Amino acid sequence: MLAEIITIGDEILIGQIVDTNSAIIARELNRIGVSVYQMTSVQDDRAHILKALAEAGSRVQLVIITGGLGPTKDDITKHTLCEFLGDTLVEDPQVLQHIEDLFRKYISTPISDLNRKQALLPSKATVLHNAYGTAPGMWMEWKGRVFISLPGVQFEMKQLLLDKVIPKISATFERPYIVHKTIVTYGLGESAIAERISEWEDQLPAFVKLAYLPNLGKVRLRLTAKGKSRELLSDAIEAAAKQLYALIGDIIHGEEEEDTIETVLGRLLTRKKLSLSTAESFTGGRIAGLLTAIPGSSAYFMGGIVSYATEAKMNVLHVPQELIKRHSVVSGEVAVAMAENVRKIMKTDFAVATTGNAGPEKGDSDADIGIVFIAVAGPEHSFAERFQMGNHRERIVQKSVHKALEMLHKEILKF
Amino acid sequence: MLAEIITIGDEILIGQIVDTNSAIIARELNRIGVSVYQMTSVQDDRAHILKALAEAGSRVQLVIITGGLGPTKDDITKHTLCEFLGDTLVEDPQVLQHIEDLFRKYISTPISDLNRKQALLPSKATVLHNAYGTAPGMWMEWKGRVFISLPGVQFEMKQLLLDKVIPKISATFERPYIVHKTIVTYGLGESAIAERISEWEDQLPAFVKLAYLPNLGKVRLRLTAKGKSRELLSDAIEAAAKQLYALIGDIIHGEEEEDTIETVLGRLLTRKKLSLSTAESFTGGRIAGLLTAIPGSSAYFMGGIVSYATEAKMNVLHVPQELIKRHSVVSGEVAVAMAENVRKIMKTDFAVATTGNAGPEKGDSDADIGIVFIAVAGPEHSFAERFQMGNHRERIVQKSVHKALEMLHKEILKF
Repeated sequence: MLAEIITIGDEILIGQIVDTNSAIIARELNRIGVSVYQMTSVQDDRAHILKALAEAGSRVQLVIITGGLGPTKDDITKHTLCEFLGDTLVEDPQVLQHIEDLFRKYISTPISDLNRKQALLPSKATVLHNAYGTAPGMWMEWKGRVFISLPGVQFEMKQLLLDKVIPKISATFERPYIVHKTIVTYGLGESAIAERISEWEDQLPAFVKLAYLPNLGKVRLRLTAKGKSRELLSDAIEAAAKQLYALIGDIIHGEEEEDTIETVLGRLLTRKKLSLSTAESFTGGRIAGLLTAIPGSSAYFMGGIVSYATEAKMNVLHVPQELIKRHSVVSGEVAVAMAENVRKIMKTDFAVATTGNAGPEKGDSDADIGIVFIAVAGPEHSFAERFQMGNHRERIVQKSVHKALEMLHKEILKF
Repeated sequence: MLAEIITIGDEILIGQIVDTNSAIIARELNRIGVSVYQMTSVQDDRAHILKALAEAGSRVQLVIITGGLGPTKDDITKHTLCEFLGDTLVEDPQVLQHIEDLFRKYISTPISDLNRKQALLPSKATVLHNAYGTAPGMWMEWKGRVFISLPGVQFEMKQLLLDKVIPKISATFERPYIVHKTIVTYGLGESAIAERISEWEDQLPAFVKLAYLPNLGKVRLRLTAKGKSRELLSDAIEAAAKQLYALIGDIIHGEEEEDTIETVLGRLLTRKKLSLSTAESFTGGRIAGLLTAIPGSSAYFMGGIVSYATEAKMNVLHVPQELIKRHSVVSGEVAVAMAENVRKIMKTDFAVATTGNAGPEKGDSDADIGIVFIAVAGPEHSFAERFQMGNHRERIVQKSVHKALEMLHKEILKF
């Protein structure tokens, strides 16, 4: 079963916002066996929207549209959908009631006629209730196809998708099964792996696809099988994976749920009832930010110190000036002292620390751009590792944040 | 002049990655007067890529393609481009040399035949040198259209775009002028503004477009004019803006460069030679993370303390237990104490602090979800403000981070 996603809005086409909705929708559709054939972004332009709707409807059974449902004149999706479907707009009293309630509760300005117009919907549309906003979702049928229109605001769209759209699609369409398996490898590049498994790859059954997903020093190999018998698919994927272990078992570091490293780490800390703190230099609070983005992280994350300036490392983290002088501020010794001291200050079981040079200039040390030390301190011992993370500032930070979480995870697993 | 963007890769269509490249490319094209008519994402599938190339080529003069240039079998863009252009792949010795150099310098695994194949390029393509990676960009011509292929890895793509692609497009195509002006408003919702300026909006000249961009409590109004005479466009935009000031001057808070608040704040701090520190509770290091993402932020940002747990607020930030008991940990009094204390600890001119409840549970206080206090401490005085930031965790954090930077900016402007 195939679907397409159309996102509408001038702000996408001029690059003012990144279209994150398409990826969120695609991920959820994939999970229930619906493949996305194409994603298309078009301007708030009547003729172009009509063309995009007709083309998508001619290719696939399900079209999900986001954006253009706001109250202002540049939002024309609803009128254009009516034109496309040969329908007219009528006021939905329940939606109107909901809009009035939202204004009373959260919005300080008085409700306007334009807001009330958000309760006008195509007469044949099934309304999907939007708890977080004034623009409801709509489920419409046209020549045996289903068109779903959702608001563009991400958190409203996502809630509607998970609560209403995905369950209704699951109940409405017969779908094939999709089975994924992702195998994580470290230590070899994409092409070096490809050479080692080239023959195996050529002999995969046609319904099994392999993708290479290189990111942050690891390469994930994703196997995907699609078809009617779940058992057959699982067997094929398991057989393929087994062969893969035989071929490159030396670089395989396990299999991956769709979890992020911070989620996996969080679960581990919760299960082992351990606490964590951070001392960050050039990563500037990004490790703490990732950790605290997880609901429930207060169970294990006590806090962190962002010691961006060398003075802050001395004054707040009590790293001896002497140590900095002897080894430089970008050194394993300083990283270890940062981790050990924040662990004591925050009274936690484990701590992680970063110091390095992300560029573009050299900063308070002679370390080359990309040189990074990451230290882990625990109840039994502490250690630091040195890395060369390349020459691109944002990339150096991202890779280091990821590596720090990985080192913590590995160490706490052993504990 | 119109362009389209095609992004290629199964990982986009299954939602494994968000397509950020399209927005980056669109923004840069817009700046030089090239409008993006459509963005399309397609799978690593020969037939589908060929169709997308032909369709885009039939609609616009310039097509930019990203992705599918990796060394493995699922990357088929280059072969498909050759098929489309009626060309063949030939080895480029300079590209091969560059690939070998990169491997020697940054990559620990030996270079493979697959990597060497990345030096195979369509014979008629003009090579765009990729300093950061092994896959070069390509500039190709076909039936009077230009097709540009770039790698999908974002930082490689971006560098190529800025250094090579945009200058070459500027030199090759005659383009209309585009003039933008963005006016920032606070205090009224999108629809309330729209009602007040409805008549004015209807009377705008056809070549002037208005967009409403609501985000994080403010609504930006973006005026765009496109045409052949830069002077005429500027005059029209200035006239329209003047009328807008007359209509809604009470809610206009100025005009906006395309800068983020953290960049604007950073420039202000640098100019005034002032330093800054942060004390973050529920924002968990996200303010520090934003500040340090700016190159050169070490000139003014000393560091921060992430006091996620109440104990950390007492032990590290020295907030008196007595104060927390009396006012609760989510209170203006605690926020001010956090800001004042981190300012002393980090020895900075200004400091900002956050405490609040982002949900999903109540945590260490009785504060409702969404209740947030943000405090600013400076050399002369300190103060806190209370906010209700809604009921969505990630959104509460984002809005609060933004509000904190805004409050800082306002306060430091006055200093």
